[in-house]
Amino acid sequence: MLEGFSETAQKALKLSKALQQKISQGFQKLESNPLKSKRWQRAQGGGGTSKSLLNGRVFERAGVNHSAVWGTVSAQEQAMFQKLMQHCQPENTPTAQRFFATGMSLVMHPLNPFVPTVHANFRYFECQTDQGPLWWFGGGCDLTPYYLFDDDAKHFHKSWKKLCGSLRPDAYALFKQKCDRYFYLPHRQEHRGIGGIFFDYERAHSQTDYLDFGKKFGQHFCEAYYPLVEKRKAHPYLAQHKEWQQIRRGRYVEFNLLYDRGTLFGLKTGGRSESILMSLPPTVRYGESESFPPGPAEKKLLKVIRKAKNWA
Amino acid sequence: MLEGFSETAQKALKLSKALQQKISQGFQKLESNPLKSKRWQRAQGGGGTSKSLLNGRVFERAGVNHSAVWGTVSAQEQAMFQKLMQHCQPENTPTAQRFFATGMSLVMHPLNPFVPTVHANFRYFECQTDQGPLWWFGGGCDLTPYYLFDDDAKHFHKSWKKLCGSLRPDAYALFKQKCDRYFYLPHRQEHRGIGGIFFDYERAHSQTDYLDFGKKFGQHFCEAYYPLVEKRKAHPYLAQHKEWQQIRRGRYVEFNLLYDRGTLFGLKTGGRSESILMSLPPTVRYGESESFPPGPAEKKLLKVIRKAKNWA
Repeated sequence: MLEGFSETAQKALKLSKALQQKISQGFQKLESNPLKSKRWQRAQGGGGTSKSLLNGRVFERAGVNHSAVWGTVSAQEQAMFQKLMQHCQPENTPTAQRFFATGMSLVMHPLNPFVPTVHANFRYFECQTDQGPLWWFGGGCDLTPYYLFDDDAKHFHKSWKKLCGSLRPDAYALFKQKCDRYFYLPHRQEHRGIGGIFFDYERAHSQTDYLDFGKKFGQHFCEAYYPLVEKRKAHPYLAQHKEWQQIRRGRYVEFNLLYDRGTLFGLKTGGRSESILMSLPPTVRYGESESFPPGPAEKKLLKVIRKAKNWA
Repeated sequence: MLEGFSETAQKALKLSKALQQKISQGFQKLESNPLKSKRWQRAQGGGGTSKSLLNGRVFERAGVNHSAVWGTVSAQEQAMFQKLMQHCQPENTPTAQRFFATGMSLVMHPLNPFVPTVHANFRYFECQTDQGPLWWFGGGCDLTPYYLFDDDAKHFHKSWKKLCGSLRPDAYALFKQKCDRYFYLPHRQEHRGIGGIFFDYERAHSQTDYLDFGKKFGQHFCEAYYPLVEKRKAHPYLAQHKEWQQIRRGRYVEFNLLYDRGTLFGLKTGGRSESILMSLPPTVRYGESESFPPGPAEKKLLKVIRKAKNWA
């Protein structure tokens, strides 16, 4: 079925499915309501499986998606592909002929405002061009707390630092910086959360190295995030804490609709909107940020949201 | 204070303030909680007054804003102004030297899901260029119901048709079509609501004609919208109706953050985000559109949202 694409394409597809599987299994140890699976197909080639949940006991909304799409690059799409490929080959950018893309992506919006929201994805892209094949890996994971626990932030970042160390010694510092830059809302002068790691157009190492990295990614996600949920899911909270969470979720929507490259790319190229907008939080409030005076706990969060901090 | 700008600039400023005043007065006849005024100033020239309300008795969130800004066009801003002026003068687009912009804008999000949301604005723009002054008017008003009442939709459109008729016989048909095209979400294949009127770069008539049109705009807004609020504000509703309203409000956010020119322009040029994002609805839900099966009443709305209809 993936005729004409590399062995790595086949392996990356298998890996994306395995990541979805592993992360979903870990999720169901915390959440008794089941993720519902929905398969979809793409007429021009490929498809995917969305696993999602609304109004669970621990998570208000969550989705763990897997997809693989491929096809011939049309004349109209050429400019778009050139723009992507330019990141890898700024001079003599090749002409794209066929492409293959696969990945796993997830967002988890907890019910309890003391549990942070998390987002993660891992992707492989391959393009056959007039100058031979071009490929890269992308992905990352970032945490968006509503109330900050220093220990949790440290634990999250240390987990990712450990994984990045398996790639090369300076990878964490670089991916952490990329994450802080990417998940930023200029109009609010705020970061989306406390960051994590982010990488794109990665091809400095061998494909095998990145596949190994990807295999470990699932385990590290489970270790980085699930213990925080376990620890805080029964944290007592008042209406005002929930309100603060819903105000902050408004910023999450702002980031995703105003700046997130994946969201805008997907929507503007006719992707499945319900899958793309799966990342949006379930219940949101606008207009209260001016009337909600932040107390010490809220201010503690705002401080690290306004100026990124080193945690590991 | 407006030295070097036309007499129309001065009149348009006065008109914008008067529109804010008139519309706010009408608003307070329906809503017993007061709009709170907030004045702001712009360091480089100008400022405005925001009148807003959160958690009123009839409106969950509302804002009626007035502003006037002016200044010298910097080298970095030139490209942006050229892009605007091109709409009026595609060939030999002049070089902008100084600009003046004033306007009134409003959004009203009612509490009761049987009352529609409304948005309106009226704007004047003037630019001094190397080829002399260039000016235009813009604005409009559109209605976003959650449940459709044919009589209300007809009443709303007929009011605007009457106003447009005072400008020229075919203005309503043109402005109605522009409105249907502008307030459209391609990724949902839906209009934002049932439309109304929309116009921009308007300069086919004299400045006096547009100022007269603007003076009547306030009265027509009050006649087009407030009777609908009066009629439906006590309409009994259940939790499911409120849920549907909040799901639909999610689409309102999607439009404003993904497509609205004014919002994107404002945020990306460093405008005051709280004022610009005043248009966002107060409480919103995402993720339920797949799990909320539309009944006959919801389907009635979807039909006219998916294919624009003539009402007047």
